Amino acid sequence: MNSEKILLDHGAGGKMSHQLTMDILLPVFDSPLLKGLDDGAVFQAGGERLAFSTDTYTVDPIFFPGGNIGDLAINGTVNDIAMCGAEPRYLSVGLILEEGFPIADLKAIVHQMGKSAKAAHVSVVTGDTKVVPKGAVDKIFINTSGVGVLYDGVDVACKNATPGDIVILSGTIADHGVTILAKREGLSFDVSVKSDSAPLNHLTRCMFESSRMIHVLRDPTRGGVATSLNEIAQTSAVGIKLFEDSIPVKPEVLGMCELLGLDPLYLANEGKLLAFVRPGDAETVLSVMRENPVARDACIIGEVISDNPGRVVMQTRIGGRRIVDMLAGEQLPRIC
Amino acid sequence: MNSEKILLDHGAGGKMSHQLTMDILLPVFDSPLLKGLDDGAVFQAGGERLAFSTDTYTVDPIFFPGGNIGDLAINGTVNDIAMCGAEPRYLSVGLILEEGFPIADLKAIVHQMGKSAKAAHVSVVTGDTKVVPKGAVDKIFINTSGVGVLYDGVDVACKNATPGDIVILSGTIADHGVTILAKREGLSFDVSVKSDSAPLNHLTRCMFESSRMIHVLRDPTRGGVATSLNEIAQTSAVGIKLFEDSIPVKPEVLGMCELLGLDPLYLANEGKLLAFVRPGDAETVLSVMRENPVARDACIIGEVISDNPGRVVMQTRIGGRRIVDMLAGEQLPRIC
Repeated sequence: MNSEKILLDHGAGGKMSHQLTMDILLPVFDSPLLKGLDDGAVFQAGGERLAFSTDTYTVDPIFFPGGNIGDLAINGTVNDIAMCGAEPRYLSVGLILEEGFPIADLKAIVHQMGKSAKAAHVSVVTGDTKVVPKGAVDKIFINTSGVGVLYDGVDVACKNATPGDIVILSGTIADHGVTILAKREGLSFDVSVKSDSAPLNHLTRCMFESSRMIHVLRDPTRGGVATSLNEIAQTSAVGIKLFEDSIPVKPEVLGMCELLGLDPLYLANEGKLLAFVRPGDAETVLSVMRENPVARDACIIGEVISDNPGRVVMQTRIGGRRIVDMLAGEQLPRIC
Repeated sequence: MNSEKILLDHGAGGKMSHQLTMDILLPVFDSPLLKGLDDGAVFQAGGERLAFSTDTYTVDPIFFPGGNIGDLAINGTVNDIAMCGAEPRYLSVGLILEEGFPIADLKAIVHQMGKSAKAAHVSVVTGDTKVVPKGAVDKIFINTSGVGVLYDGVDVACKNATPGDIVILSGTIADHGVTILAKREGLSFDVSVKSDSAPLNHLTRCMFESSRMIHVLRDPTRGGVATSLNEIAQTSAVGIKLFEDSIPVKPEVLGMCELLGLDPLYLANEGKLLAFVRPGDAETVLSVMRENPVARDACIIGEVISDNPGRVVMQTRIGGRRIVDMLAGEQLPRIC
């Protein structure tokens, strides 16, 4: 750790986040489950394998096109559990409210949480509310944690990527990231640009019904697709080859990224997933995905290779190759 | 809800917290598990009953005599799960850090969390770190959630208090609350005044080994013993008779309470529990408790009566009787 103070980069989901986890947290919480760096932990209880995950939501602004901090908090944890190969069942909600926060806003947020929980078929079963004096927190932060039950015979983990695996992306990227940034900067924009916040557990259930040979699942939130792929490449010690041409970005989102000087590969998504699938099953999984409204634009974006272990290599439009690194700096604090 | 803005009282653990939960949260998160208002939710998974609980820690100051926000965050959730009649097993840790927070402080806090987790025999298996810009959070907030496995044949719940039950308190009250307040106000005080932060799961395991007839367990944190007892009286629709003389308070703590005009019955504890036990088993449970270092001063402080349902009635030192109400205002924000 070079700096003596916490920097925004430590929370950006990129290199410095990774370093903070490795240097300060893992040595203390010496658990094999934590070392997997998956979206959640999987353990045995009773006769079942359970997944357990947590996330704190600090998004700014709290209301944005396509959602608010409330549905982000539900969908985010639902998705983290789904990415473990589990059906999310029970959620906890921890609210931190700033003194003076409008109750009408709280009601709108909680209402949306209820709707999202219903849509994802999960129950909020326990909670906690803290109110802190004005200035001690910015409006509202929400932690959700969740418990889910693993599907039989499923084994997905960040370390399971295998050369030959086909990399599937469930749809267009950067929608959430661009929406938050544009709203924050007060930019007016195309009404079709909105957060993609959505639960992915119904999608993953269908995917597992069609194949048990899904090796890795990941929702590319903070740090975007580029950072998620780098984590997988490093943890599995494999290379990942990406086809730039194949990565779907909405034209209006791409336009805003160009305007703002941001790379969509590093921008957060809140309703998309990456799946690493055994080659023989990829087409089946893909066609099942496309039947689901949240993955209509699913497509193959790359493959796992044994060359370049730990690296993500992009085959560019003009036929060149470039290394796609982890997010190094903070593009966008408080994106989720 | 009379006010249109969130007030500190909404988070104080007393009447307004209760109202916020009842009016805004419960109607939306319509779960029978949530309605019990217990410290955690209990549900079936595989062949076992699991307990699931969450809490966010916002204590100010973050370092205080007897501990820091880190061990509070571990012990608090360990205790909430223990109060469900469960053995805590797995914890999640969600950190919210302010940009500029000293890494040395983070290390000290995380180190303490590791020590406390070890002492409580729980594993931190999943986590999340958010960093927010300077001013968006005061230094550091920590959410912990946890999963535990219920002991066979145990059925403790806030609604299970039964007339005749003996009310046992595990030790002296108000230590944590007075420590935080004194430290915050910069008061110099007796070195023996310090937070009682401690894990209670080893104690509850011994208690359940001695009796399955423990009807209610509760750790009287925010709002203190008075508020916890009121919640139990209301949820179980019974009266609770307290003997003022029997409630242990350290003389130095009582002295500070008198100086500051605070009632120790309403001050937070972080290593104490209330147990409601079938009369025939009370002496056995009590003697087992006293063998445990965290409950050496355990004593009987009252009993459950069928008169005055929903009320806590104190038999005072001078022989009178007074109603002990729920905490109405905010004595002390950010106590845990």
